[in-house]
Amino acid sequence: MGKRIGKQTVALARPPVLRGWAAVAGKKEGEGPLKNAFDQIAEDPYFGEMSWEKAESRMLRICFSLACDKAKLPPSKLDYIVSGDLLNQCISSAFAMRDTAVPYFGTYGACSTMAEALSLGAMLVDGGFAERVCAVTGSHFCSAERQYRFPLEYGGVRAPTAQWTVTGAGAVILGREGAGPHLTQITTGVIVDAGITDANNMGAAMAPAACATLKAHFADTNRSFADYDAVFTGDLGAVGHDILQSLLEKEGYDMGVKYMDCGMLIYDRRTQGVNSGGSGCGCCASVLAAHILPAMEKGIWKRVLFAATGALMSPTSAQQGESIPSICHAVVIERED
Amino acid sequence: MGKRIGKQTVALARPPVLRGWAAVAGKKEGEGPLKNAFDQIAEDPYFGEMSWEKAESRMLRICFSLACDKAKLPPSKLDYIVSGDLLNQCISSAFAMRDTAVPYFGTYGACSTMAEALSLGAMLVDGGFAERVCAVTGSHFCSAERQYRFPLEYGGVRAPTAQWTVTGAGAVILGREGAGPHLTQITTGVIVDAGITDANNMGAAMAPAACATLKAHFADTNRSFADYDAVFTGDLGAVGHDILQSLLEKEGYDMGVKYMDCGMLIYDRRTQGVNSGGSGCGCCASVLAAHILPAMEKGIWKRVLFAATGALMSPTSAQQGESIPSICHAVVIERED
Repeated sequence: MGKRIGKQTVALARPPVLRGWAAVAGKKEGEGPLKNAFDQIAEDPYFGEMSWEKAESRMLRICFSLACDKAKLPPSKLDYIVSGDLLNQCISSAFAMRDTAVPYFGTYGACSTMAEALSLGAMLVDGGFAERVCAVTGSHFCSAERQYRFPLEYGGVRAPTAQWTVTGAGAVILGREGAGPHLTQITTGVIVDAGITDANNMGAAMAPAACATLKAHFADTNRSFADYDAVFTGDLGAVGHDILQSLLEKEGYDMGVKYMDCGMLIYDRRTQGVNSGGSGCGCCASVLAAHILPAMEKGIWKRVLFAATGALMSPTSAQQGESIPSICHAVVIERED
Repeated sequence: MGKRIGKQTVALARPPVLRGWAAVAGKKEGEGPLKNAFDQIAEDPYFGEMSWEKAESRMLRICFSLACDKAKLPPSKLDYIVSGDLLNQCISSAFAMRDTAVPYFGTYGACSTMAEALSLGAMLVDGGFAERVCAVTGSHFCSAERQYRFPLEYGGVRAPTAQWTVTGAGAVILGREGAGPHLTQITTGVIVDAGITDANNMGAAMAPAACATLKAHFADTNRSFADYDAVFTGDLGAVGHDILQSLLEKEGYDMGVKYMDCGMLIYDRRTQGVNSGGSGCGCCASVLAAHILPAMEKGIWKRVLFAATGALMSPTSAQQGESIPSICHAVVIERED
């Protein structure tokens, strides 16, 4: 039985265990700073399929299977899959999971999907509704480019503030039993719209949402950055990272060196031509599974705040002159010893 | 603390109360059989906005506010909003809820969204994570036509098996306390793909998913149609209704007159030119709030099975020759006396 400990935060009574996880990445991501961390790196951007959308779907399926394998869990033992993605009508997750025969909850949180899925999954486990849940999401550079921006062949020049959609996926198996770090608290974001209309500057649009959720989390839990070994945002990129840093500094928070953004960790911005950094559902999902959780397993970090950020816009809303509503969902992951 | 009572079904320990609800409909829906049942009927299909997408969003906002009013609840007292819609990147719900300052979970279940949102919302309440949750969704004929099919001005001829996307919205406030019927059981669907590729025959694509979920529900609960006063599917339309009926009859189920489809209830198919019937997230959501719950309040039905159906495809997946994966989520609603 969970407990609300603040306006946006719940504490889990018997914190679910993260008992297995996997990360799959594309070629470019596999050449970046985390190249030795992914479970699988695909040389073929099509993942053996005939379209970018099917490739993305195949990647999610591979990642899901790897996570089940690593958790030593046959997929049929899962009580729920919570999944979602960036494609219109979330087809990459639906098609990826259509032959699993596992009860399925589709989510849409844009690039915040991993934290949303972990939040819902953890509450289903802690609430007594499930023994085992898989949270899984991903994104693909090529399907995102053609849906949100231009055909790849057009070769459009990218704005300096633009981000590079990560080809990658992450999956985590939550369970009531098992070994691994625990998900202990959940701070669910409210939608924040700071009035940014530039679809090439998602970091600026999402930073205020990240700021709001971090502030809410610290207020609800009576904690600060000092209580964490590391704090991660999802995919603000360098531009959004710096905006968040100055927003929080203005509020008197001392972030020190503990704050990192997954969109900055996944690429080498000096050499990989990704401008402000990585983005997409697969960005923080794959960094979580490839980098953060393994580091926790090794004991490098004991308590981590994982705050995934999402821009809840569409090309249609942008074309209609609308600003970009954003959201940030945060979860606390910790190991006991 | 909930309890799993079968592979796909959970029973709620302290079943959340449906303490308020509202339904908003468009002009055509307001001329149909349920014309006296909606809380509000919009004469202006634009809802005072400048685009179909903004109109849909405005409709959701109106419906959300009406439900809060009817539940005598200031929106700020909500712990979560669970919402979603059919538009790319679910913009109508995100934009509708962006000024609520309520923690927000975006879902994507296509036309099954109302049952998905009620399922998640009820588990959040029963699990001790929330006191009050709003489940809200809707759809708009004009935004759906242009996204999924043709520009309205094109005036395309519709296939006899095609359905008419409902302009309508439904919102339900779930609470731990209060008066009203209770949500007692949840059967979460698995994705079912029967190989149907005709995007003009969603009923045929979704009927096998409805069949699978109803069978799972009856197996998990050891119940049958006889245990319910009424059983509703979401938006199979007349074609899907008949397919589901024969699928279940082949399995030996006696459905009697208890089975109805929301897509057939919302329009007069003889006179309103909707072919197979209504569809869209707003179809079963508005029928639930306008027709089913008020009838339960009056004591006409005491125990209802509400099984919303969704087709998890996109125009892109259809163009790539993919079949239509579908899902059906069911919830049991009952009053005690």
